[in-house]
Amino acid sequence: MSQNRTFKSEREFTDWLKSRAAKKPRGLILGIGDDAALIEARAGWPLALTSDFSIEGIHFTERLHPPAAVGHRALARSLSDIAAMGATPRFALISLALSPRADRAWTKSLYEGIFRLARRFGVAVAGGDTAAGVRQTALDVTVAGEVAPGRALLRSGARRGDLIFVAGELGLSALGLRLLKKHNRSGSARHQKAIRAHLYPEPQCPLGSYLARRGLASAAIDISDGLSIDLARLAEASGLGASIEAGRIPVAQSQESPFGARSLLSLALGGGEDYKLLFTVPAARSHLLPRRFQGIRIYRIGEMRGARQGVTMVRDGKTVPLEPAGYDHFHRS
Amino acid sequence: MSQNRTFKSEREFTDWLKSRAAKKPRGLILGIGDDAALIEARAGWPLALTSDFSIEGIHFTERLHPPAAVGHRALARSLSDIAAMGATPRFALISLALSPRADRAWTKSLYEGIFRLARRFGVAVAGGDTAAGVRQTALDVTVAGEVAPGRALLRSGARRGDLIFVAGELGLSALGLRLLKKHNRSGSARHQKAIRAHLYPEPQCPLGSYLARRGLASAAIDISDGLSIDLARLAEASGLGASIEAGRIPVAQSQESPFGARSLLSLALGGGEDYKLLFTVPAARSHLLPRRFQGIRIYRIGEMRGARQGVTMVRDGKTVPLEPAGYDHFHRS
Repeated sequence: MSQNRTFKSEREFTDWLKSRAAKKPRGLILGIGDDAALIEARAGWPLALTSDFSIEGIHFTERLHPPAAVGHRALARSLSDIAAMGATPRFALISLALSPRADRAWTKSLYEGIFRLARRFGVAVAGGDTAAGVRQTALDVTVAGEVAPGRALLRSGARRGDLIFVAGELGLSALGLRLLKKHNRSGSARHQKAIRAHLYPEPQCPLGSYLARRGLASAAIDISDGLSIDLARLAEASGLGASIEAGRIPVAQSQESPFGARSLLSLALGGGEDYKLLFTVPAARSHLLPRRFQGIRIYRIGEMRGARQGVTMVRDGKTVPLEPAGYDHFHRS
Repeated sequence: MSQNRTFKSEREFTDWLKSRAAKKPRGLILGIGDDAALIEARAGWPLALTSDFSIEGIHFTERLHPPAAVGHRALARSLSDIAAMGATPRFALISLALSPRADRAWTKSLYEGIFRLARRFGVAVAGGDTAAGVRQTALDVTVAGEVAPGRALLRSGARRGDLIFVAGELGLSALGLRLLKKHNRSGSARHQKAIRAHLYPEPQCPLGSYLARRGLASAAIDISDGLSIDLARLAEASGLGASIEAGRIPVAQSQESPFGARSLLSLALGGGEDYKLLFTVPAARSHLLPRRFQGIRIYRIGEMRGARQGVTMVRDGKTVPLEPAGYDHFHRS
């Protein structure tokens, strides 16, 4: 590996990172460059802490994902978890292990994707770790966010009869990935929305903290693995069942011939990587929920039921069990 | 991969993790199982945040490192960073990407190594991420620790004339690794101390928080890459030079013939993974420093000088520049 292609030393890399990080973020006492970052949380507010891997060959490929999108998506995964807690993201640690194929330009572009999204959400990149010489480039992104005392949105907070909502279209990211694979980054203008949803997903942090602040949602989860699996997780954590209506699911639209209505619904149910919020609201409070929040349409798709009824979907007038179909890291069929 | 060998699902794995994690750790509002962990920091105390990779083939190998040691070392790396800030570790996130070679028994044993060390240091394992199917098993461990306001130990706090100390022997871990490679985990009884230092390093968290609480140290860093490189980092962050005496460096001892006095000194200077604290104390306060702390001997090895003098070592009556020799992830010669 030529020294022109990569960073000459960890020091040069760290210096470059420091020069790109925000200068005096609120609450960041000490950023990149010491043994650890020092942060100051809002007094009395709990912190939500999450970390998520993004690994070459599993979460992204060099061929399909431009480096800025790899960085964006890696941070977005963690920001979406913070959104699902109703918290406001504040600080991020970026651990990055680079393969020899990741040259200096690729690495800088990856970080630009991270920094751009971090800036937009007021997140300070405070530290992390770096390694080189791995076979698959890997990032692990940790985010800390703050949430008002007693206001965090848990998966376990839903009650029987609560209405189930989802914010924005589902299956769009999975559709975008399929279009990318077929057309390899080109694709017509009407594909660009789906491709963009896949490459640059928008974490719903403002909506999450709005729902928490107003005390509107009783439970929340982000749809990272597909509606069917993430709804099952929320229902189980709440000790309940759920019933949704197929006709109410905001399924991504496509005029591409291989993607018929059936397969578009299956992308919404099991496609994953949508990073939209799925949340429940007590029926008596649901009139307080806006139909749109910052341009995102909010859809009511069903309601929470007793545990014995399981998780079901009403489709063409018939009630069928909704099998969790989505990504499980330990089970590939 | 047979389903008997690995976990059947992410769910089964998460359930097992939950059953092994501490039940009601102080300050942990919500642990493993939701979108993020919820923690409560001590009111008004900053948090030190760090994350560190441990990657198969770089930081450990399946052949030399038993899984419990892989887990122990991964957590110890981050705990040592927290110790170097003078902070007390409280919460950890474990992100784990498993190769197909990591079966259920291996994975459980890895976590036992993590949980055992976490319990001893009062650290709650609060969450993380899991992936499977990678070519090299990788862990990224994030630790959050608390430190009294204004008491954190920075690399940048040393002043000219401050005395330089190190806690415990150096080069022992690198010696242990060489012995392991040669004898493959067996080795005679007198090798066991070095092998143990390599496989199960002891982070110096109690010493770090003691130095911070008493206001004794002006600066600190943990020796993760070797004394020469970590001293250079501390000196540079403080805008100073430093002079140490070769004869005062607590070099690991060995009766193994290939490890002469010269090479044992070079292991201390550049061997890495010792995870001992290197810190500076104003000369006027150095009489307050104990000679031993919880069984660890504290050695004075030199003093901080002006920047123009650089970082030097006195050896056999001669002053020579101390070239930083240690691990740099971007530079392999």
